[in-house]
Amino acid sequence: MKLLTYKTQDTEPRLGFIYNNQVIDMEDFGEISNFPLPNDMLDLIDMGFEIIAEITEMVSETPENFFEEICYEMDEVTILAPIEKPRKNIIGIGLNYTEHVAESARTLDTTGKLPQKPIIFSKPPTTVTATNTEIIKNTKLTEQLDWEVELAVVIGKKGKYVAKADAMDYVFGYTVINDISARDCRREGQWIVSKGQDTFAPMGPILVTKDEIENPHNLNLSLKVNGVEKQNSNTKFLLFNINDLIEDLSIVFTLEPGDIIATGTPSGVGAGRNPQEWLYDGDVVEATVEGIGTIVNTVKEI
Amino acid sequence: MKLLTYKTQDTEPRLGFIYNNQVIDMEDFGEISNFPLPNDMLDLIDMGFEIIAEITEMVSETPENFFEEICYEMDEVTILAPIEKPRKNIIGIGLNYTEHVAESARTLDTTGKLPQKPIIFSKPPTTVTATNTEIIKNTKLTEQLDWEVELAVVIGKKGKYVAKADAMDYVFGYTVINDISARDCRREGQWIVSKGQDTFAPMGPILVTKDEIENPHNLNLSLKVNGVEKQNSNTKFLLFNINDLIEDLSIVFTLEPGDIIATGTPSGVGAGRNPQEWLYDGDVVEATVEGIGTIVNTVKEI
Repeated sequence: MKLLTYKTQDTEPRLGFIYNNQVIDMEDFGEISNFPLPNDMLDLIDMGFEIIAEITEMVSETPENFFEEICYEMDEVTILAPIEKPRKNIIGIGLNYTEHVAESARTLDTTGKLPQKPIIFSKPPTTVTATNTEIIKNTKLTEQLDWEVELAVVIGKKGKYVAKADAMDYVFGYTVINDISARDCRREGQWIVSKGQDTFAPMGPILVTKDEIENPHNLNLSLKVNGVEKQNSNTKFLLFNINDLIEDLSIVFTLEPGDIIATGTPSGVGAGRNPQEWLYDGDVVEATVEGIGTIVNTVKEI
Repeated sequence: MKLLTYKTQDTEPRLGFIYNNQVIDMEDFGEISNFPLPNDMLDLIDMGFEIIAEITEMVSETPENFFEEICYEMDEVTILAPIEKPRKNIIGIGLNYTEHVAESARTLDTTGKLPQKPIIFSKPPTTVTATNTEIIKNTKLTEQLDWEVELAVVIGKKGKYVAKADAMDYVFGYTVINDISARDCRREGQWIVSKGQDTFAPMGPILVTKDEIENPHNLNLSLKVNGVEKQNSNTKFLLFNINDLIEDLSIVFTLEPGDIIATGTPSGVGAGRNPQEWLYDGDVVEATVEGIGTIVNTVKEI
């Protein structure tokens, strides 16, 4: 399913799904189906991935005209981040594409060695923002605002010591994250100030459940700034793939439904360019992952 | 107030407070007072710090015998972490006591320079554990398990760009955290694997509201391993005090009710000793902050 969190002029944020290029309200769909369904993405994830097959079947069995009362045209809704308020910090993975390891070592303070284990950091829930919102650049904190398109994995069930072979059982779906990074805000090497400022995790536009992604390790991902392509790669080049990450992360800490793993960015970030490039007021950043969509955000300097 | 999260043989986790050395159930107290009160710490914090004065006054006006039906002796309850499931990663502060900066630089990979801004990292909610529980040492991940007693600040209201002078308005109360750290688990300098493993944040035993702490910048804090004192200092030696931290953190990200800031540890950690000392199976660690209490945890190797 193509899930989204949306609101209209008349509603609080609600859970919906895309069907025939329209937005169907999930809770309303549950009502017409006599099957209680939630109005919040995290509540849906808590029901377990199995619910997706059930809903999909119900949708396919529902006469078209039944949707008329519970749908919106795409341009009638505001798309919010699919998980507006994650229950914990987003789990970020650094240096997870070979060329990005190299470019980072040239211009940042990383070692340039291919990591032997995933490099983990975190982004607080307050970093999350939707497509078509502003990325706030606090010019008192940073002059070096940078972009990073990433495939993000949403966890669907609790897991500890998950084996690689079983890892996909723990995935609920996928979304796009732009892991905005203020390169000059690292402190004693720690990345959380660099990557953790409010609005530094544009996410969305939708959450695609795993059944709709044939192979998450073969998705093009790309990023444009003001229409000019800066990043273009494919998730097949991930150093630690999703199975590796879930195994490793679940050794370190218990994974929980709704956890979000931003799997790392390929080369082409501003810091790695010669000369280096940064984001400024009014710049428009488009981050795309194949099969999910594009998030578009504008930089706002304050 | 001295607040706690507790359970009995017959209950789920519940919110309580200590009165006359007994545990009074908060929701039950609300019922006998005709004033709805929650059964969860985060729900109480969401009501704002002002609620504490109201409850305190109600308690003082309640006849002693009214408490008989809603109280437990201390030994009848199991004390849980005051905030069992924080809404985001705990905000950790590194290198925030001068002598600890020095000892870290001698034996770890930090620079030894006094930080010009707070060094921030995070510990996932899954690190939280109560007093009288086990700290799990995964011997496949670490040989260098270490201790760090810290004063933890619990935020009481949402804040962005909070001035130092106003910072205390944003504090709800205080607790103790033992910032357990696996020194050999840093990856590309990042500390989250070192500090983020399940059970690496023993917290408690209680949450003391700020009105009961005359000066949070003059509290002794100490730590013992198997009865031998390893750390002993005072929060007056914090490099960045609570006001500084709240100002700085709130520039970076929006602070929210229930956020927890572990303010950093003084010298005396195992990594800083000569020879270095680590925690092993069966070791008992007691972390104490004056005016709050002691958390006691036993190391369990797996």
